[in-house]
Amino acid sequence: MYIIGERLNGMFMNVRAAIEQRDRQVIHDLVKAQLDGGANALDLNVGPAAGNAAENMIWLVETAREATDASLWIDTPKWSVVQEVIPRTPGKKAINSTKADEEALEKYIGLAAGHGAGVIALTIDKAGVPNDAEKRIELGALILTKAMEGGLPIEDLYIDPIILPVNVAPAQPKNVLEAVRQLATFSDPPPHLVIGLSNLSQKCSNNHLINRTFLAMAMAAGLDSAILDPCDVELVNTAITTELLLGKAIYCDGFLEAYRLQSRG
Amino acid sequence: MYIIGERLNGMFMNVRAAIEQRDRQVIHDLVKAQLDGGANALDLNVGPAAGNAAENMIWLVETAREATDASLWIDTPKWSVVQEVIPRTPGKKAINSTKADEEALEKYIGLAAGHGAGVIALTIDKAGVPNDAEKRIELGALILTKAMEGGLPIEDLYIDPIILPVNVAPAQPKNVLEAVRQLATFSDPPPHLVIGLSNLSQKCSNNHLINRTFLAMAMAAGLDSAILDPCDVELVNTAITTELLLGKAIYCDGFLEAYRLQSRG
Repeated sequence: MYIIGERLNGMFMNVRAAIEQRDRQVIHDLVKAQLDGGANALDLNVGPAAGNAAENMIWLVETAREATDASLWIDTPKWSVVQEVIPRTPGKKAINSTKADEEALEKYIGLAAGHGAGVIALTIDKAGVPNDAEKRIELGALILTKAMEGGLPIEDLYIDPIILPVNVAPAQPKNVLEAVRQLATFSDPPPHLVIGLSNLSQKCSNNHLINRTFLAMAMAAGLDSAILDPCDVELVNTAITTELLLGKAIYCDGFLEAYRLQSRG
Repeated sequence: MYIIGERLNGMFMNVRAAIEQRDRQVIHDLVKAQLDGGANALDLNVGPAAGNAAENMIWLVETAREATDASLWIDTPKWSVVQEVIPRTPGKKAINSTKADEEALEKYIGLAAGHGAGVIALTIDKAGVPNDAEKRIELGALILTKAMEGGLPIEDLYIDPIILPVNVAPAQPKNVLEAVRQLATFSDPPPHLVIGLSNLSQKCSNNHLINRTFLAMAMAAGLDSAILDPCDVELVNTAITTELLLGKAIYCDGFLEAYRLQSRG
């Protein structure tokens, strides 16, 4: 399981304050906590922090990079920020995210391919988030085609079928599972399939339970990566156990600890 | 989710002692605890208790029946015990279990159909437990055919694709998932698909985590019933949450409590 840590996000008050005050220690601590929890990559999002978004992101990239060689995911809705930050991000990196309309796909995939970066493409087009599995699969096919045309290696492509909160869109989790199941058969090797897990349980009671239960279901369907909170021990334990039960690891009494040791490399 | 409680089993010391000493209160308490936990039915197994197996089972049936109208599952490897006990079990009941050879299937299905009982048929033949998904599916097809020929209503048929301990048979959980996924498409409505969940994590560390993780994965593939410990709160919470995420229930803040209230009728 490829875990992208979600905690370096300006939506969290401590991260927002750290960005505004250029407090490197807070960032370094959150890098370490997430890697210790089992993260393989780190999502970076400056959120509503005051100041210039691109400058904030560049500071966040440089500060996170001081503490890890892990892949840094540049998470911003602004093309101008992506354009400015990606060339200045050393080491492994990915763009989070583009929507699935042709023009945007060509632009983002071109930038990613030119800088050896990964890219997340959302199954959202101008009509918005699909209400069914079929449209998600159709947009997934478009994304895959555009990635191939744009020369992006398949291992750098992450398709996100968009999970919505279960309290407002009760049928969507099942549709996402079906989309994942079918997209996982689209090529060999398949594109990475990723979701922003926490969105599923926004403003729900029992949100941790909801997240970890869906993670097991989605991984069984073919999901191989997720943006999530790697400091949620039970959640990461569930991911590790799901891989065990899919035959991707061999049981030993210390299988949880063994996974975390390995993921830290 | 149809939950069959596993706790009335003579392998547990307190149940064994209660059977040998004819202590009705212990049995009544375990009936209540399991129903409160979310059980819809109760498995009854006298295990290694001293005395005559059929007499022990009849006492256990009568004692459990004093405390509940729920379906009682007569769990014994002995045909003579099944034959004697099923006609003397009042109310809802099922036979646990028959193997998938033709002669045994005809015998068990005939008895079940004649008494309005359910029957669990294991995907095991004379060659033992299959090593792959394909043989499980083949035996599932045989079971389904024999049930139809024998006049057993499809809603009384439970196919068990046999889960083995992950520490000794690491590839089998994935094969069981694939068998469940395919058997769930075999008829409309499909046969019930059931597993004896605890077997998965026998002698494993983190056994509760392993059980609840696999339960979510298997339910997402089409499993609709399981023999498990309904007193494991986190396990039943996972089953409830999985149904929510499959769109079988609507989210409310008290969705866990609502499910248990409903399952108690």
